[in-house]
Amino acid sequence: MRIARFSIDGNVAFGAVEGEGPDGLVLDIIKGIPFADFELSGTKVPLSKVRLLPPVLPNKVVAFGRNYAEHAAELGHELPDAPFAFFKPSTSVIGPGDAIAYPSFSQELHHEAELAVVIGRMCREVPRERVKDVILGYTCANDVTARDVQRREKQWARAKGFDTSCPLGPWVETDIDLKTAGDLAVQCTVNGEQRQLGSTSQMVHSIEELIVNITEAMTLLPGDVILTGTPAGVGPLNVGDEVAVTIQGIGTLTNKVIKRG
Amino acid sequence: MRIARFSIDGNVAFGAVEGEGPDGLVLDIIKGIPFADFELSGTKVPLSKVRLLPPVLPNKVVAFGRNYAEHAAELGHELPDAPFAFFKPSTSVIGPGDAIAYPSFSQELHHEAELAVVIGRMCREVPRERVKDVILGYTCANDVTARDVQRREKQWARAKGFDTSCPLGPWVETDIDLKTAGDLAVQCTVNGEQRQLGSTSQMVHSIEELIVNITEAMTLLPGDVILTGTPAGVGPLNVGDEVAVTIQGIGTLTNKVIKRG
Repeated sequence: MRIARFSIDGNVAFGAVEGEGPDGLVLDIIKGIPFADFELSGTKVPLSKVRLLPPVLPNKVVAFGRNYAEHAAELGHELPDAPFAFFKPSTSVIGPGDAIAYPSFSQELHHEAELAVVIGRMCREVPRERVKDVILGYTCANDVTARDVQRREKQWARAKGFDTSCPLGPWVETDIDLKTAGDLAVQCTVNGEQRQLGSTSQMVHSIEELIVNITEAMTLLPGDVILTGTPAGVGPLNVGDEVAVTIQGIGTLTNKVIKRG
Repeated sequence: MRIARFSIDGNVAFGAVEGEGPDGLVLDIIKGIPFADFELSGTKVPLSKVRLLPPVLPNKVVAFGRNYAEHAAELGHELPDAPFAFFKPSTSVIGPGDAIAYPSFSQELHHEAELAVVIGRMCREVPRERVKDVILGYTCANDVTARDVQRREKQWARAKGFDTSCPLGPWVETDIDLKTAGDLAVQCTVNGEQRQLGSTSQMVHSIEELIVNITEAMTLLPGDVILTGTPAGVGPLNVGDEVAVTIQGIGTLTNKVIKRG
C-alpha cells in the first residue's frame, strides 16, 4: 500500500494511493492514522485535487553519513569503521512539490538522494531479527546539504538542518520487504538530467545494521525517519533548479529550488 | 517568575513556583500554557506533593560546542572560528530527579553543566536586537556525553543524543534579562563534590550570537531549548552517582545515574 498525507479544503488526512497513471490516481481516505489499526473509508478523492504533504511528520530524522563507498570517496573521505549518525530537525521537513529555499549563509547547496525508512512503532534496542517489525515502509528523501558550511562547521546542525533541507515523499510504500529495500535503484535528476544513480545494494551498512545501531542509543517514535546515506554523484543545486529523487518501486519526489524569501 | 511543569495525580500542568525554602514552596497552577497569555489560577499545591517534569517539552534542543575556551583546551581542541551546533533529540530529555541511564555502548560518561535558554515564540532570522523578545527564560541543563563514543564517531547523534542524555530543570526562570544571563555562576557537583565552576561571562559567543547564528538557518519553536556550552571541569559519571547542576539565580537540577535497564 502507498500511504500519502495530504490536505484538501484545509483538512489534513492520510489516504491510500490507488489507480494508475497521473490522471487515474485516487486517494482512499484512511480512517484513523497509519501507525495503529486503520480502515480505508471508501471515500475517494482524485490525487490531482489535493496537495500532497510530507508523508509523515517525524519527531526526529536520523541520517547516516558516508554509507556508500563511492560517495565517501568523491568527497575525499575514508569510510568510517562504524556507522555514524546526525539529526535533521522536524523544522527541516518539506513535502513533494514544496520549495527548497536556498539558505543565505551558503553558496554551495548540494542534492543527496536517499532511501528513507519510516518507523511504524515506538522502539529501542531493536535486535536485528526484529527490525522488520518496526518499519512502516519506505519513501524518497533528499538530504539537501550546504556543502561549504558542512566543510566549515564541525557538527552539521546548520549545514544539514536548515529549513526546507529535508524533502520527503511522495508517499510511504509499505509493500516493500527488507530484502527488496536492500536492492533498489536510487536516482537523482536536476532539470531532467541524471546526476546520481546507485543502488541500495551498495550501502556499506544495511538497513538492519543502521536501526540496530541507532536504537542501541535512543528510542524511535512512530513517524521517525531514518536516512540511509547517498550514492555517488552529489552536486550543486541552483535557484530555479528542479530536483527529483526517484526510487525504484516507490516513486518520485520533486522539489524546486527558490531564493529564501 | 519561575515556571515549573509537573504531574499530580496523573495530570500534567504548568505552575508558578512561589514561597521560600524546601518545605514552603508551592505551585500556583497556570491556566493555559506559558507560551501565550496566561493567568495564575490561584489554586496552589505544595511542591513536595508533585513530581516535577522537564519544564518544557522541546521539539528540538540545539546545543553549541566548545563555547568556553578552558573547556575546549581541557579536551585538547582549538577554539572554533565560529559557533557550531548539534542537536539533542526530544527523546533525550528528562526532568529533575529523573535517572540518567548509563548507556550500554559507552564506558566513559561525562557531565557537562550548561545554561539552557528556553525559546518562547516561533522565530527565524532573529536580529541581535530582537533576541531578548524570543526568550521565555532560562533553566539548568546537563549535556550528558558518552565521551568515548564522541571521540569515535564523527557526528554526535549517539554520543550526545541517547535516551536520558538531556536533563533539564528544575524550572524556567523568566525574570533574568539577557545581560544578567551573561554573568551567572554555573556549577556542577558529583556526590556533593565540586567538579565544574564557571561563569556564563566566559562564553566565547554570547547568547545573542548563538541565537542569531542558529536562526539564520532554522526556525525555532516555542519550547525549543538552546544549550550554550559547558565550562571547564567535565569528568566521569558512574552508576550510583548523584550529579547536580546549579546556576546562580535559577536553581539546582539533580539527577542520579543508574544502569540502563
